[in-house]
Amino acid sequence: MRKSVTISEVGLRDGLQSISTIMPTEAKVEWIAREYEAGVREIEVGSFVSTALLPQMADTEAVIKAALNFPGLIVAVLVPNRRGCEAAIAAGAHKISLPLSVSETHSKKNLNRGHPAMLAEISACLDLVNAQPSHQKPHFEVGLATAFGCSIEGAVSAQQVYELAQQVVDRGVPEIGLSDTTGMGNPTQLEELVTGIWDRLGNQVLSSVHLHNTRGQGLANVLKAVELGITTIDSSLGGLGGCPYAPGASGNIVTEDLVFLLESMGYHTGIDLEKLLAARHAVAALLPSESWYGFTAEAGLPTGWVPTVPTND
Amino acid sequence: MRKSVTISEVGLRDGLQSISTIMPTEAKVEWIAREYEAGVREIEVGSFVSTALLPQMADTEAVIKAALNFPGLIVAVLVPNRRGCEAAIAAGAHKISLPLSVSETHSKKNLNRGHPAMLAEISACLDLVNAQPSHQKPHFEVGLATAFGCSIEGAVSAQQVYELAQQVVDRGVPEIGLSDTTGMGNPTQLEELVTGIWDRLGNQVLSSVHLHNTRGQGLANVLKAVELGITTIDSSLGGLGGCPYAPGASGNIVTEDLVFLLESMGYHTGIDLEKLLAARHAVAALLPSESWYGFTAEAGLPTGWVPTVPTND
Repeated sequence: MRKSVTISEVGLRDGLQSISTIMPTEAKVEWIAREYEAGVREIEVGSFVSTALLPQMADTEAVIKAALNFPGLIVAVLVPNRRGCEAAIAAGAHKISLPLSVSETHSKKNLNRGHPAMLAEISACLDLVNAQPSHQKPHFEVGLATAFGCSIEGAVSAQQVYELAQQVVDRGVPEIGLSDTTGMGNPTQLEELVTGIWDRLGNQVLSSVHLHNTRGQGLANVLKAVELGITTIDSSLGGLGGCPYAPGASGNIVTEDLVFLLESMGYHTGIDLEKLLAARHAVAALLPSESWYGFTAEAGLPTGWVPTVPTND
Repeated sequence: MRKSVTISEVGLRDGLQSISTIMPTEAKVEWIAREYEAGVREIEVGSFVSTALLPQMADTEAVIKAALNFPGLIVAVLVPNRRGCEAAIAAGAHKISLPLSVSETHSKKNLNRGHPAMLAEISACLDLVNAQPSHQKPHFEVGLATAFGCSIEGAVSAQQVYELAQQVVDRGVPEIGLSDTTGMGNPTQLEELVTGIWDRLGNQVLSSVHLHNTRGQGLANVLKAVELGITTIDSSLGGLGGCPYAPGASGNIVTEDLVFLLESMGYHTGIDLEKLLAARHAVAALLPSESWYGFTAEAGLPTGWVPTVPTND
C-alpha cells in the first residue's frame, strides 16, 4: 500500500505575486486546467489582498469561480485578514489559509500588524468560517510563517513557534502549517518543530509544510517531512516565486522535482510527471518573460522512467 | 557529540574533465589551497586517463605532488586501469579510486571494456597497491558507477549491484563506493542499496557515495545517506561538472549547499562555510568562462548564521 502525499500547487499565488507580469484570468484558468489534467488536486489559486499592492491578484474571485468547475479540485486561497476571509467565503473557496509570522518584526513589516492584532484577525476569520452551514464550511488553516528563521530577526526559536502555535490552536483554529518563508530550514529543525508541535498539540493540527528552496535544501526538508508523516507539501510549477534572491536560485520548491522525488520513492501523488512537464511547458509559454526553474525539466526524465497513472479522478 | 561527515571535493577531477578549458597547474593548486584553507581535507585532484582524450588531466602527477604539501589533506585520484594505478602510486596519491559501471553497456561505452576485463584491471591494481610497503600503501576503492540507473540501459536492479559488489570484494578490494552517475537515484533506492550491501558484505566495505544533482535530488539522497551512517560524500565546488545536461542544471552536488545542509543539521564537516564561499568566488575567477551553480552562494548565508570553526587542522 503506497502512502499518499498531496501536492498543493502554490504557483498561481506565491509565484504570480512575486512577478510584475499580470497574468490574465483566462491564462490562470488554463494553468489550472493543465495541472488538473496532470493529476494535481489542490491548487492555491490566488489571494484576497490589497489590489493596489498586488494587482496580480485582483481577479482572485473570478479565478476561484472558474477553478470550482474542476471536479474534485481543492480550491485554496490565501487571506491576510477578516476582510479577505469574507471574500474567500463569498467566492466559495474550499480552503482558506492565513499567514502568521512567528517573527513579530516580520509580521509588522509584511502585514503591518503585530501578534495581538493578527490573532484578533484570526479569531474574526474563524467566526466567519464557523458561521457557515456545515456543507459549505471551508477548511481554515493558519500558516506559521518564518517558523525556521527570519531574514530580519535571524534565528527563530522552537519555543517561539510552539507558543504561537498554542495561541492559534487555543483560539479554535483546527489546523496550522509550518512555513520556511526564508529558506533557512534544515531537516533536523523540521523534525524538532513537527514532533514538538505534535507532542504539544496533537498530530491532527499539523499535516502540511510550505518549504522554500532558497539555499537548495527544499527536497531534503521534504524527505524528512514525509518520513515523519506530513501529508501535504506546497510547491510551485517551475519554481516560480518564493522570493528568489538572484537569477538561478529559485525560491519555491519546484513541483516537477518534488513529484520526481515522491513518485520515485513510491509515494502516491496522483500526478503524471510527463503530463506535468507538458503543463510546465504550456504555462511557461503563457509567461514568456519569466525564468523557469527545475532540474527534472532541464535534464528530462530518466531512461526507463515509468509514469504513474493518476488514480484520483 | 557531533557526528562527522567527510566531504570529498571532486571538482578538480569530475568538474574539470567536463569542461573544455584546460586549467593551468598553478590555478589547480590555488583551488586546492583555497578549499584547504576553508577546512576541506579530502580532494580528488585529477585522474590518470588518456591525455589525448582528457588533456585537462595531463598534469595530474604535478598536481598530486603539490597537493601532498598540504598537511593532513587526503589526496585522491581516479584511475581507469592498472596503468593509471601505477602512475597514481608513483605520484604518491593517498587514495586511488577506480570506477566500475554496473551497467556493462555503459562500461563498454565509457571505458571500452566489459566486466571481465574491468575486474582483471581491478585485480592488477590491487596487486600493485598490495606490493607497496605498508607505510605508503594507498587506500584503494572501486566506485560502482551507474548503480542507480543507466542512461543507456535504463533501470539497474539492486541484484546487479550486489552481484558486482560481491565480485569486487571477493577479489580483495577493501572498499567500494556507490555512484549515481546518471542522477536517477532516490532516497528509497539509496537505502535499499546501502543496507543491501552492508547486509551481504559487511558495513566496513561501503562508507562513501558519489551522488549527482541532475534532477535536483542530490541533497535528499545525501540526507538519507548520512542518516544511514555513510560518512563520506563527494561534491563539487560550484557544482562544476557531473555531466550537466543543460544550462541551469548542475550535475554534481554543490559543495557549498552540501556544507550548509550538514552543518545546519549539526554534523561536523570541519569546513567553514564563509571561507568556502570565498573559495568559490576565488576559483570562479580562475575559470571565468564556466557556469557556477549553487543556491547558498546565490542567496547568501542566512541572517544570524553561525560559522563553524574548523577543528581538523
